[in-house]
Amino acid sequence: MSELEKLMSILDIHALKARYFRSMDNKDWPALENVFAPDLVADFRAATGGFDESMLIHGAATYVAQLAPILGQVLTVHHGHMPEITIESPTTASGIWAMEDKLWVQEGSALPFRWMHGYGHYHERYVRLERGWCIKEIRLSRLRVDVG
Amino acid sequence: MSELEKLMSILDIHALKARYFRSMDNKDWPALENVFAPDLVADFRAATGGFDESMLIHGAATYVAQLAPILGQVLTVHHGHMPEITIESPTTASGIWAMEDKLWVQEGSALPFRWMHGYGHYHERYVRLERGWCIKEIRLSRLRVDVG
Amino acid sequence: MSELEKLMSILDIHALKARYFRSMDNKDWPALENVFAPDLVADFRAATGGFDESMLIHGAATYVAQLAPILGQVLTVHHGHMPEITIESPTTASGIWAMEDKLWVQEGSALPFRWMHGYGHYHERYVRLERGWCIKEIRLSRLRVDVG
Repeated sequence: MSELEKLMSILDIHALKARYFRSMDNKDWPALENVFAPDLVADFRAATGGFDESMLIHGAATYVAQLAPILGQVLTVHHGHMPEITIESPTTASGIWAMEDKLWVQEGSALPFRWMHGYGHYHERYVRLERGWCIKEIRLSRLRVDVG
Repeated sequence: MSELEKLMSILDIHALKARYFRSMDNKDWPALENVFAPDLVADFRAATGGFDESMLIHGAATYVAQLAPILGQVLTVHHGHMPEITIESPTTASGIWAMEDKLWVQEGSALPFRWMHGYGHYHERYVRLERGWCIKEIRLSRLRVDVG
Repeated sequence: MSELEKLMSILDIHALKARYFRSMDNKDWPALENVFAPDLVADFRAATGGFDESMLIHGAATYVAQLAPILGQVLTVHHGHMPEITIESPTTASGIWAMEDKLWVQEGSALPFRWMHGYGHYHERYVRLERGWCIKEIRLSRLRVDVG
């Protein structure tokens, strides 16, 4: 793999993660599922500051099907920063991203808070499928979570 | 256009947008005008959360001349995140950026709020002039705006 | 220096700065010292919004030894945005980053505030040592600092 191909892959993965954030905050669920490999492992057990075993999920379709109704009554803003991407082979890579998220919960939601403001890091693995780089593993660690 | 030239253009556009933010928050109006093509179309009709027709502006000089007195009594922080840049030809490109902005309004300003905190996306088109890549079209969409 | 080598250096410096933020917020002091050149000049005199002469520090080891006890009782989140990196030679570069930082101060800290929320820019110089690109000079300028 040439240095140029590595740089192209790094920038492709940056744009992949941008689509992850944008499709989530715009509640475009088909676009969100499309950033994941079908056999995604999503570990959001630390997402809300506690440790929720139900948030370890296998499969992109399953994850999006679980997430969509939860966020249906929530306005979200997710921001990502400061990627550290390592290209390991032409079809595998890993990465870390700093992140911040804000949730504003609307009336009628089952979530046990009205707003949440969190900070942390995504720890990810990527795989290159025929349609391009996809997120294959995603785990969120937290520096801090405030809720109200 | 080679892949290397495309990567160089993508990073040039990242730095262009960085100058946009930095010159605005430092109120360096000549530097801000310099990031725009002269025939800029700036669509900030959704900027303050409502829909203000006077914020659709043609021309870089006109836009900066309108903006500078508004922001003269406002401390601003604008942050950009997660670019998705598409190089369409050696001289044209498009891009989307996540953004967050905070305004603190000082005494004497005509703005109808004391502070604003917003979230959204820039949707942009770029053109490569002799002096380098410039922003030719900029439109701001909003996820949320809070004012107080 | 080829254009490809310049792009590789720019992305290396992006990842270097990511390690700076991540090691600081995770209080991994050896990793933090490792992002700096040994003869670091760190100018954080404007960090807390005033102007504190004791925050102009020479030497990576000295800086980290001074910082670690201060932050031992503080939860921090630092985010960086919008790099403008200039590669000046195969071993020297400069850069500007937008930044935002939040500090939550725990009981028993000597810091004269309970929380801080700041905005500004890092102005930096980089040097390429045998172990890769390092931060050689870092200066923080502020747009705004709020404390409570």
